[in-house]
Amino acid sequence: MLTESIQVPVRVVLVETSHPGNIGASARAMKTMGLSELVLVAPKSFPSADATARASGADDVLAGASVCASLGEAIADCVHVVGASARSRSLQWPTIDARNCAAQLWERAAAGPVAVVFGPEHSGLTNEQLARCHELVHIPANPDYSSLNLAMAVQVVCYELLMAHAEIGTWRAGLQEEERDAPLATADEVEAFHIHLEDLMRRTGFLNPDHPRQLKLRLRRIFNRAQLDQTEVNILRGLFSAVDPDKSERKARS
Amino acid sequence: MLTESIQVPVRVVLVETSHPGNIGASARAMKTMGLSELVLVAPKSFPSADATARASGADDVLAGASVCASLGEAIADCVHVVGASARSRSLQWPTIDARNCAAQLWERAAAGPVAVVFGPEHSGLTNEQLARCHELVHIPANPDYSSLNLAMAVQVVCYELLMAHAEIGTWRAGLQEEERDAPLATADEVEAFHIHLEDLMRRTGFLNPDHPRQLKLRLRRIFNRAQLDQTEVNILRGLFSAVDPDKSERKARS
Repeated sequence: MLTESIQVPVRVVLVETSHPGNIGASARAMKTMGLSELVLVAPKSFPSADATARASGADDVLAGASVCASLGEAIADCVHVVGASARSRSLQWPTIDARNCAAQLWERAAAGPVAVVFGPEHSGLTNEQLARCHELVHIPANPDYSSLNLAMAVQVVCYELLMAHAEIGTWRAGLQEEERDAPLATADEVEAFHIHLEDLMRRTGFLNPDHPRQLKLRLRRIFNRAQLDQTEVNILRGLFSAVDPDKSERKARS
Repeated sequence: MLTESIQVPVRVVLVETSHPGNIGASARAMKTMGLSELVLVAPKSFPSADATARASGADDVLAGASVCASLGEAIADCVHVVGASARSRSLQWPTIDARNCAAQLWERAAAGPVAVVFGPEHSGLTNEQLARCHELVHIPANPDYSSLNLAMAVQVVCYELLMAHAEIGTWRAGLQEEERDAPLATADEVEAFHIHLEDLMRRTGFLNPDHPRQLKLRLRRIFNRAQLDQTEVNILRGLFSAVDPDKSERKARS
């Protein structure tokens, strides 16, 4: 898990948002991914109880949000501005997908403030607003139904921004391995485990002495895949002993 | 853009969801990313008007959803099951991040049905439900506030599944960055540049006053793509002044 607090230096601009719930949900989406700078351009209703409810624990992002009258004001100091839009347009505009966009925003952020701009829920950004963006970010989607909810689009873009954080790469590399609370068993320990198991199977008649090989290989394959640690070997060998009929007999006789 | 319809062969299982709105929003999130198989385990309220409203155009996914009494029933035929959970647990469980998980689910889907399981909003999956999963999928998030809304988590996982689709790789294009020797121009500097240029075009009659829009947008597109730095803005504005007929006239007269 990541343990250090993360700051993603990207402003989110929501233009003329109709549903205050989407503003709250966007604030929450931002905060989960380490973004905090929210600017609202002419929101239909803000502040709003709906926004606060949907923001959940991200009410600080809402409280810190600026409200502007125009997009120009919201991005005045920005060196790079990306517009989010699912609509296809008469005028072709340079388009980049969310993953490449995230990498690029991190680079540009080194030069000054950068922003991602999301248009109104139903109509998207106008051509004039679009003209203020250096490029469009496109979230790959099912061509049959590409209509992401506004806050969902914010979530995906913010997620890609977090994933493009330099530290994530090193962190992800370590994630493949399950965290162990005991050292992995050595080859000798695993071998002793299999000898124990085979002995048990032979004495109980489970292992056909004429064709032992196939079953033994299958069991080895299972436990290879399981990558037993030392505690697990001990637990399983304890189980073998507990179910061992000869040992029970001995126990009964003694 | 993708043009072919996409089918992502992964089942989404929502366990004991409290808010029907989250079921609807999850259905929409699924459909935008090409998933269609939704299974609900003991939902608190379903069908529900809230679910239908939030599903928007994905009401077909809702209508096709199965309802089961237990998780076991929902995943009975699955060869691979992944549990989504943000909670850290006493019992260590193999964990994979959403991006790697998506690649793996595509691989496993070749062998049979596969599923991603999302627990209830507030409590997450129980240890018993967790034990039915081969591994956990973790969505990287800000350690300070990692509480993604349920439908947001569904959106991110489904997005990664779409992104792991074989065709997406070829479709995506990278952008080459150029090294700069001056700071990038701010939005205000670029705006002043365009006003200067438009004024020049208007006074020289280059800009047709009846149809100014298309030309202005095309010019903005060119200079957006060029990503002017401050030196370049100064050079071009110097050029505009140099070619300005009104200014030349003044110069000739003086």
